[in-house]
Amino acid sequence: MPEIRKDAVVGRWVVFSPERLRRPVNSLVMEKPEPGTPDSDPFSEGNEQYTPPEVFAIRHEGSEPNGPGWQVRVVPNRFPALRIEGSLDKEAVGFYDRVNGVGAHEVVIESPKTDEALEDQKLAGVANVLKAYRKRAQDLSHDKRFRYVLVFKNVGALAGASIFHAHSQIIALPMTPTIVREKLITAQKYYLQKDRNIFEDILRNELKTNERLVFENAGFAAFCPFASRFPFEMCIMPRLQSPHFHESDDHQLFLLADAIRKVLRALREAAGAPDYNLIIHTAPIKRTDKPDMQTSRHDYRWHIEILPRLTGIAGFEFGTGFHINPVLPEEAARVLKEVIAHD
Amino acid sequence: MPEIRKDAVVGRWVVFSPERLRRPVNSLVMEKPEPGTPDSDPFSEGNEQYTPPEVFAIRHEGSEPNGPGWQVRVVPNRFPALRIEGSLDKEAVGFYDRVNGVGAHEVVIESPKTDEALEDQKLAGVANVLKAYRKRAQDLSHDKRFRYVLVFKNVGALAGASIFHAHSQIIALPMTPTIVREKLITAQKYYLQKDRNIFEDILRNELKTNERLVFENAGFAAFCPFASRFPFEMCIMPRLQSPHFHESDDHQLFLLADAIRKVLRALREAAGAPDYNLIIHTAPIKRTDKPDMQTSRHDYRWHIEILPRLTGIAGFEFGTGFHINPVLPEEAARVLKEVIAHD
Repeated sequence: MPEIRKDAVVGRWVVFSPERLRRPVNSLVMEKPEPGTPDSDPFSEGNEQYTPPEVFAIRHEGSEPNGPGWQVRVVPNRFPALRIEGSLDKEAVGFYDRVNGVGAHEVVIESPKTDEALEDQKLAGVANVLKAYRKRAQDLSHDKRFRYVLVFKNVGALAGASIFHAHSQIIALPMTPTIVREKLITAQKYYLQKDRNIFEDILRNELKTNERLVFENAGFAAFCPFASRFPFEMCIMPRLQSPHFHESDDHQLFLLADAIRKVLRALREAAGAPDYNLIIHTAPIKRTDKPDMQTSRHDYRWHIEILPRLTGIAGFEFGTGFHINPVLPEEAARVLKEVIAHD
Repeated sequence: MPEIRKDAVVGRWVVFSPERLRRPVNSLVMEKPEPGTPDSDPFSEGNEQYTPPEVFAIRHEGSEPNGPGWQVRVVPNRFPALRIEGSLDKEAVGFYDRVNGVGAHEVVIESPKTDEALEDQKLAGVANVLKAYRKRAQDLSHDKRFRYVLVFKNVGALAGASIFHAHSQIIALPMTPTIVREKLITAQKYYLQKDRNIFEDILRNELKTNERLVFENAGFAAFCPFASRFPFEMCIMPRLQSPHFHESDDHQLFLLADAIRKVLRALREAAGAPDYNLIIHTAPIKRTDKPDMQTSRHDYRWHIEILPRLTGIAGFEFGTGFHINPVLPEEAARVLKEVIAHD
């Protein structure tokens, strides 16, 4: 059983999962897999038997589960960081705190094709991936052991991916992430003080100044944040107030698919196809577990961060929690916007 | 002028320094430089003219500044993240906060030899490097614009190093790092509540249980933290209570040099010479700037973190602030201790 431990000083949890040692070596040069060969690509169509049985799929009519004929497929991770079975058993170990490594760890296979990037799919294809995220986040939210559902995507070895085939991951956790907690606390303080949503204020500011704006449509705006950690970092913010990504309706997911597709294509072209992480920052499932996280529909808004791994994380970052970024977001946004205009 | 900007939601500062774009490419395969050739190794003895003039050095008697004859040499970074000249000019930019990128960014060249690792120096050599850290931290602490002096060491490309020659970096900042602030707040709360120092309690617990202890001498203990983020992560904790590294006396630095030498050699042998970051977590210069950081000599203790970069930082880490680690610290400590016993 994996184990989750808490640092006594900074309150950071660490998941210990010896299982992860067994996964394919995280080589720094990822090779493009050959389509259809299970050794090199367990995620391609026809290789369904090489993954655990699917928990969700968007399939062509008449196709059978765990066979070909799908567009998006969600399966448990073969090398899970957390295990789905078991009780939490929170306990003190002398001075410290631990809990059983109970949680979900799923893989969203974004395309049946071995070499199709998310942003190269048609709009409906990207929307299907988002629908799979939503469905799994909704389902996992009903498990009373979990407090948070994280959806993220690692692209390229520098961003932590060990498989080339386009995929994302979903992890359900029995505790609220530190970063989410910090954002919630700020959002709540801001709302109590100003009676306004901080994310709405950021969005309005970015739309008004137009200095860092990269893209907008009827549902979303993408911009390079004022204090971007990485060159070409982007935030995608919904115009509609909601704490949870998984409450989005089909129309919103379609508009989000449009935004993601446009900005990922622009990133690839503007920054030389960098490795990146994409993270959906949504609110915890319930916010009633801590007094400072009281449920409110108004203070927190879900959003997406895209983090191109163009600069490293070194002693400065670990010693401070700050970052060094050689590219101003105004400059990055100018380049990205230009690429989108000429697309 | 570089610029430092604050994220409005999480309070994280980011240093924007276009200057850093000019530094040697951070290639993922670092080549061992040829000794004495300035192009490949500006840090080796005889190449003093290829660095900015030294701000401190430990030299053989009779040798001249910026010439050969030194053991440790501290110079301003040629590609500084921050600039030493200028005033802070803190200001609001509409919705956001910024400050001029004023600070110090220095390089500690640890050896005149092109290919001598810190841990391969004699004890007195390592102690000299620590004395250089101390001297620079003391001097920079007198500059009223600075609130924090960070000493860190990046080894290998995965850990952010762009030069092979053994070196460390010192950065003085006009604000207290987020991570230090978190540690201070916990330490202060703990002290007020229990009338005990949390770092002393951790140290005692590690010495008593002996499950994660790697090394101890009269001044220091090294152990793998209970919630280690990385395989073979280590913490070096002084037995003597002091908030500031730069208050250490020569005897303590000698004992610390012994600990660093032993554990770095053990890490190299046990984990296959991984890239790593070494960070000195010391208290802010003054702790009177925020009510929750009131000066106390008793609640916070400086310590060192060694972070082997054996696992990546990916979407999970960015989405949560948590880490996934496939190796338990008890197992890592067992292996490291064994290596030290047979050294």
